[in-house]
Amino acid sequence: MMLMNDKRTNESPLLFIKDSLIGENVKRSLKTLADLRGVFHNCEAYEQMSPDTLLYEVTCHLPVEEGTPGGLYFGITRIYPGKVGDEYFMTKGHFHANMNRGEYYWGVEGEGRLIMMDQNRRVWSERMFPGSLHYIPGGVAHRVANIGYSVLSFAACWPSDAGHDYQVILENGFSASLQCVNGNPQLIEI
Amino acid sequence: MMLMNDKRTNESPLLFIKDSLIGENVKRSLKTLADLRGVFHNCEAYEQMSPDTLLYEVTCHLPVEEGTPGGLYFGITRIYPGKVGDEYFMTKGHFHANMNRGEYYWGVEGEGRLIMMDQNRRVWSERMFPGSLHYIPGGVAHRVANIGYSVLSFAACWPSDAGHDYQVILENGFSASLQCVNGNPQLIEI
Repeated sequence: MMLMNDKRTNESPLLFIKDSLIGENVKRSLKTLADLRGVFHNCEAYEQMSPDTLLYEVTCHLPVEEGTPGGLYFGITRIYPGKVGDEYFMTKGHFHANMNRGEYYWGVEGEGRLIMMDQNRRVWSERMFPGSLHYIPGGVAHRVANIGYSVLSFAACWPSDAGHDYQVILENGFSASLQCVNGNPQLIEI
Repeated sequence: MMLMNDKRTNESPLLFIKDSLIGENVKRSLKTLADLRGVFHNCEAYEQMSPDTLLYEVTCHLPVEEGTPGGLYFGITRIYPGKVGDEYFMTKGHFHANMNRGEYYWGVEGEGRLIMMDQNRRVWSERMFPGSLHYIPGGVAHRVANIGYSVLSFAACWPSDAGHDYQVILENGFSASLQCVNGNPQLIEI
């Protein structure tokens, strides 16, 4: 019997702690209201808020180079509660540049909606809450809105050769917006 | 303002509840000691145990056909506590058939070791516990052992065109085995 060197057991792990990733090679990015210019429909309400308002932050583990076939990326997004007019704080939303790449999202804490739009601009949503799991098929744009009064966090896993196409959404938007109507979230056609 | 039909919000979600997936299109499989014949090294201890002993169970969400490029699969594995001789209950272990496909594992409950082996048969392990996140690069075989006294559960996300190559592991095994030595888990060269 030969004992192997203990060094072979990795003692500096990567951690997925509720609403963020911690460890080597974890990249953090913050998005403020200024980064989402043109995304919200109520321009007057948008202009009245501080452009420094923090909307969401993302921690990502990107173990291989962007574009690598067969690799995967992992991330956690925290969206703060709030609204711009009647529209909930939400992520920019994107298609994958490599159109047939899918993605999983799953709710970790808080209450939200995953809003999806196919290439025919048909929009639908799924309730997101701790333990909800969502498959986003290839060719489907996706964004998440926080509809609650506390932070919404969700985790994601996607292929390292998916890429992000934010431009189509920035130019044409989604064909529906998730708004607070009489206190309840409703998809409103634009 | 036009309210959209509520049917567009999916009310029958897929759930990821601590140690299993629940929902439509979730596939469950059970593995008993009989399914892992030849995997454990202490043949005498193996033969003395009931072949019906439940080692682990897996619930999987497989939203696209196996082999689909760009799609993803998601699964939860529950490994029961126990040993065959000094060797902890563990999964079969596999390479991906499509060698460059990576995978994420993350610990949900219990205490375990993720054991990895590259194509040069070099073996190492990572501590697995609630919140540990592990990237398994392409070309690396992987299996998980439960080193605790309660159920170990972990979640996984992998490409739908990764496939599984169990045969190489069944024929040649890993070049090291995780065994209980004086009460502690140790990788032992075979």
